[in-house]
Amino acid sequence: MSDLSPTDRSTIRRLPDRARSDRADLHAVLDAGIVCHLGIVLDDAPLVLPTGYGRIGDVLYLHGSTGACSLRAAAEGRPVCVTVTHVDGVVHARSVFHFSMNYRSAVVHGVPRLVTDDAERLAGLRAVTENIAPGAWDHARPPSRKELAATSVLALDLTEASVKVRTAPPGDDESDDTAGDGRWAGVLPMRTVVDTPVPCPLLPGDTPVPAHVSEGRTPGGGRPR
Amino acid sequence: MSDLSPTDRSTIRRLPDRARSDRADLHAVLDAGIVCHLGIVLDDAPLVLPTGYGRIGDVLYLHGSTGACSLRAAAEGRPVCVTVTHVDGVVHARSVFHFSMNYRSAVVHGVPRLVTDDAERLAGLRAVTENIAPGAWDHARPPSRKELAATSVLALDLTEASVKVRTAPPGDDESDDTAGDGRWAGVLPMRTVVDTPVPCPLLPGDTPVPAHVSEGRTPGGGRPR
Repeated sequence: MSDLSPTDRSTIRRLPDRARSDRADLHAVLDAGIVCHLGIVLDDAPLVLPTGYGRIGDVLYLHGSTGACSLRAAAEGRPVCVTVTHVDGVVHARSVFHFSMNYRSAVVHGVPRLVTDDAERLAGLRAVTENIAPGAWDHARPPSRKELAATSVLALDLTEASVKVRTAPPGDDESDDTAGDGRWAGVLPMRTVVDTPVPCPLLPGDTPVPAHVSEGRTPGGGRPR
Repeated sequence: MSDLSPTDRSTIRRLPDRARSDRADLHAVLDAGIVCHLGIVLDDAPLVLPTGYGRIGDVLYLHGSTGACSLRAAAEGRPVCVTVTHVDGVVHARSVFHFSMNYRSAVVHGVPRLVTDDAERLAGLRAVTENIAPGAWDHARPPSRKELAATSVLALDLTEASVKVRTAPPGDDESDDTAGDGRWAGVLPMRTVVDTPVPCPLLPGDTPVPAHVSEGRTPGGGRPR
């Protein structure tokens, strides 16, 4: 497993002490999320859309309808930027200037390729589904040929990426730290929780909730229920 | 208050039944969030970065260091895309193809302007701070002239925007709904919660946690603690 080897645009210049260079950090941030923000350029302007994703090794998989213009554009060999962010808390400082957030974020740059190999398409779709809902792929009905034909799968190598993490208390100026003016400072932690599953109204009432739903993971890496 | 008047690029073509056209829906999605994903085009490639924001009426304010290349680029009259997403649940379907998420998202397109008027700069910074931490602006030390000089404030009109909301149970094919094969389907709801505030280690132990921190709002519009 190699370190992240930053290129010019994946080198963190703002607050570089927050940068992480381990590939394991990139994987951890990606694996903790279920939604990324996919950026593409359409008509010289940026378009940023939320979408699901999944990871296999050092490849990120995205999927979408073959009718989605964003996916179509991304499949045409254009550069994309995929960003995953977890907000872990609001950092209350003594000074407005030093308000911040604790967060983990990953930014991936690259030109995705449209996956055409049937086995890789299935593996990519499985990765996306399992990232959103671990255990679901083997429980649900597999995609039909018609459904597969309506779905684009894109693969993005995790070659060029940056990771930024802030986990600290507020970073006020020393003169504010020692002012003794009673202003509160600290972190208000935040996390995602999952609530009790809500069965589909069309489901027979005696259908048990499977363990992969009731004991599934919590996005963001939060504590389990 | 006018409806959102979609342009070509802000017209939702994929699953248009999820589109919302009320300006109030746009405001609600924006106001429920604390982090947006800001997309800009740098060297013909997209760059998507998480950042704070605030809203005053139909203007979205962003701020950042004058040294940040993303903010500098956005201040140069280039188009941006600002996207705010709340994931409200994972939709488990009977078929892999119909897995989805319940979510609320807003996508804003436009060319931001660099705010130079001192009063608007302060108002914009206040909006950003208060969106992250309501009540904080009047509690914390206001920005100094030097701090203000190091901060860029951008204003983006909420003229061109789209809003998409999914709140439904799974949308499986009828043949799967009635298959009676015991596959579970439903929604696993998700929300953000805030935990007990963690005081700065440098804070005197008897400093009370102010109400705006302990009783503050929960991002995503989740239920309060």
